[in-house]
Amino acid sequence: MEKRLYQKLIEYKEGNVYPFHMPGHKRNPQLLECGFPYEMDITEIDGFDNLHHPVDILLEAQERMARLYQVKKSFYSINGSTAAILSAISATVPKGGKILIARNCHKAVYHGICLRDLQPLYVFPEILNSAIGLNGEIAPTKVRKILEEHPDVQAVLITSPTYDGIVSDVRTIAEIVHKNNIPLIVDEAHGAHFPFSDRFPESAITAGADLVIHSLHKTLPSPTQTAVLHVCSDRTDIERLRLFMGIYQTSSPSYVLMAAMDACVSLLEENAAGLFHKYCADLNWLRSELRQCRNIQLIEPEIGRDIYDYDPSKLILSLQHTPLNGPRLHQLLREKYHLEMEMEAEGYVLALTSVGDTKEGFQRLATAIREIDAEFQHPESMPKGNKIPKQDGNTKKRKEQPIYQKMKPADAIEAGTTSVPLAECIGKTSAEFAYIYPPGIPLIVPGEVITGQIVQNMRKCTEAGLALQGLKDASSRTIRVVKEEQ
Amino acid sequence: MEKRLYQKLIEYKEGNVYPFHMPGHKRNPQLLECGFPYEMDITEIDGFDNLHHPVDILLEAQERMARLYQVKKSFYSINGSTAAILSAISATVPKGGKILIARNCHKAVYHGICLRDLQPLYVFPEILNSAIGLNGEIAPTKVRKILEEHPDVQAVLITSPTYDGIVSDVRTIAEIVHKNNIPLIVDEAHGAHFPFSDRFPESAITAGADLVIHSLHKTLPSPTQTAVLHVCSDRTDIERLRLFMGIYQTSSPSYVLMAAMDACVSLLEENAAGLFHKYCADLNWLRSELRQCRNIQLIEPEIGRDIYDYDPSKLILSLQHTPLNGPRLHQLLREKYHLEMEMEAEGYVLALTSVGDTKEGFQRLATAIREIDAEFQHPESMPKGNKIPKQDGNTKKRKEQPIYQKMKPADAIEAGTTSVPLAECIGKTSAEFAYIYPPGIPLIVPGEVITGQIVQNMRKCTEAGLALQGLKDASSRTIRVVKEEQ
Repeated sequence: MEKRLYQKLIEYKEGNVYPFHMPGHKRNPQLLECGFPYEMDITEIDGFDNLHHPVDILLEAQERMARLYQVKKSFYSINGSTAAILSAISATVPKGGKILIARNCHKAVYHGICLRDLQPLYVFPEILNSAIGLNGEIAPTKVRKILEEHPDVQAVLITSPTYDGIVSDVRTIAEIVHKNNIPLIVDEAHGAHFPFSDRFPESAITAGADLVIHSLHKTLPSPTQTAVLHVCSDRTDIERLRLFMGIYQTSSPSYVLMAAMDACVSLLEENAAGLFHKYCADLNWLRSELRQCRNIQLIEPEIGRDIYDYDPSKLILSLQHTPLNGPRLHQLLREKYHLEMEMEAEGYVLALTSVGDTKEGFQRLATAIREIDAEFQHPESMPKGNKIPKQDGNTKKRKEQPIYQKMKPADAIEAGTTSVPLAECIGKTSAEFAYIYPPGIPLIVPGEVITGQIVQNMRKCTEAGLALQGLKDASSRTIRVVKEEQ
Repeated sequence: MEKRLYQKLIEYKEGNVYPFHMPGHKRNPQLLECGFPYEMDITEIDGFDNLHHPVDILLEAQERMARLYQVKKSFYSINGSTAAILSAISATVPKGGKILIARNCHKAVYHGICLRDLQPLYVFPEILNSAIGLNGEIAPTKVRKILEEHPDVQAVLITSPTYDGIVSDVRTIAEIVHKNNIPLIVDEAHGAHFPFSDRFPESAITAGADLVIHSLHKTLPSPTQTAVLHVCSDRTDIERLRLFMGIYQTSSPSYVLMAAMDACVSLLEENAAGLFHKYCADLNWLRSELRQCRNIQLIEPEIGRDIYDYDPSKLILSLQHTPLNGPRLHQLLREKYHLEMEMEAEGYVLALTSVGDTKEGFQRLATAIREIDAEFQHPESMPKGNKIPKQDGNTKKRKEQPIYQKMKPADAIEAGTTSVPLAECIGKTSAEFAYIYPPGIPLIVPGEVITGQIVQNMRKCTEAGLALQGLKDASSRTIRVVKEEQ
């Protein structure tokens, strides 16, 4: 078998070659003790290729990635999914062009829109569970309708799975998008583990997406900041992708991060089946334990009824029928049980599991949640089972607030701005984003007119003690708006 | 003393908290053995702040950096100097604006110009040594002249020191630039060590630059990919810098990289004086040893005559008076002495030293170079001493090739392109960069018309066996040009 990048780094380290080159720590482990593997941290020296013009070991490493995921080409990103998303957008939509995105996309998508001066159109996700605020899937029919009305859209970008694990019908969406001869980009940052077990939803790669972004670090054993851009079709120009991956990533990529990505690929090549078999068995056990709770509710949407598909690796523990809220449960878990969750929302906590987990870890969570659950009196009125409560019914149409887009996001970012109190901002054009999580949909995007409804939503949010994210004023008392012409 | 980030990570690791959050390796060191410190690789969990909205330990860590460098504010970059350069340009020059840059800037500067649709003007560096092709400083008089002719320039960006250690008169340039009430950005990526010893040139920070970019990893003990953007004046909007640092960097920054940056700051706070005293003594010894060579020549420009200033940490070993060329010397050093250099050019090799070096390493280089040097017959005709040879004289005016800028770089990058053989490209508009190193000045930038002189230079370069960098066609036989309108 050909040598892996990390093996070559270890071998090189043992070779006693003295570095008269960067990095300045000179691979000297005595200088600093902070856990960083300085001895393996090299630069583009002879024999170690160049990420931005790979011809040798970094080409092979990326080819191994592409083979593992069965795609045409994979680009390493050492600047996270962020660089991959910015590159995918930049390479597919010409400057000043038009893109259709899911309104619940990651902020990197909005940043790409600003950098490229794009005109965004939005498709809103369905509502999965209004009580706890979960976003549902992106409805293919909505995508079709918008593309029919706007045949000049040049690319479509959706997030699937969402942060909460909700998966859209990428196959149908891809068919619709391809009818317009434009590419579908799927931000599958949270789904890099999908191809390795039937227990998980189908990956956008096989469902027909053209570009797929994976955060290796989110759900696979790979360091924070590592990600991949997969090219799955011939609908995008590889050279343009390479150009932008070279623009949005440092010219001095970390070999330590790249070697760890290669090690992750190696592990999966050799033993994905075994590792995922064990992980899925443990996960099934954990979910069945959590399902026993009488008050805390493991959210399990019914596939085909509530939702197209969802990722069972995410554990959404709803507190709707308990006297606790998310922050309080998280605090309990942290302080009493030494368990740290992925996220707390007002009505639930989210636990992220992965193939890196141990049965012991799962046992700790099951014990903790069941102990906490047992302390509540079981209310008579609580709905049985763990399904999405009937009253929330099937995926519902969100009462979508109309969007008044006065200028492109890029123009609002560039404009002169001024800070005004919330009370005085109605009718003005926002120069900022404001988010509430959940559902993680921006209430307002730069360039959009602030309505009374939006201000009301922002107030509700701050009154509930939730932080509005994205605003420069952390107290959420003011918002930056575009200065009006005199 | 307040706890450092790396100390907090180590403490946290020992606390036995089980992660139900990213990253997917779950800090499980058994899963993978590739040298990466998975146990310290966390995400934005409680108590560990957020790089993009720092309020706590990451704010303090960046404030420690700012205190160390005595600047108003320092931004960590975990996407190298690249993200810092892109942000500095984006925050200071409005979209579509005008910037004056040194023609020998790093490609990230050109990328920033493309991303922001800027109109670049160029100031060419002087020639320091035409025989080996070294760039000299940026002459303040040239900057003044261009700014007088173009009072609408909105920022100036120069690289000082260069990759070879050549330092410009930033103080005078800053005075000139500030007369126009615009900011001076200095890419001091190679000068992060300047403030720590009088043996090194003055940093652009104290010389009056407004924004200074430091690659911590290049010359200080910090991992590859770590850098800083320093704000030294009130001439730029901190909020715009923060906005763009949030755009060009992943939303999942690596705590392992950030902790290592903090450890580097810590080391320097505690013992910069002692470490640099020893390093400079060793460096003086090494330079005096290398100066003894009779054939290989340590280039030591005379300050005030040849050049404004230079960084002695860079060792430029010229082979002008030997039968060797750079690649051959590098090969010898690598194979016989196990010494890896920073760079090889046709006429010289460049060794990078740093505070991470050991006396033993320096001894190995001195021994190797003196042994190799002793094998040559000393030619009678060789000039004495190590000064820049008289015939090259004082910094000379470069015979600058005129630039015909037909469109903005951004427009050429966006345009439809086609590949043509070198023989047929004269008069066409380039869609690519082409560089030769040295001197590392682009022969051609996207949007510029390719002249006969440029093609001749490109041919010379490939005939000498040197790779033209930047071209998509690695064989340099074709170049991509902008498709002409029918």
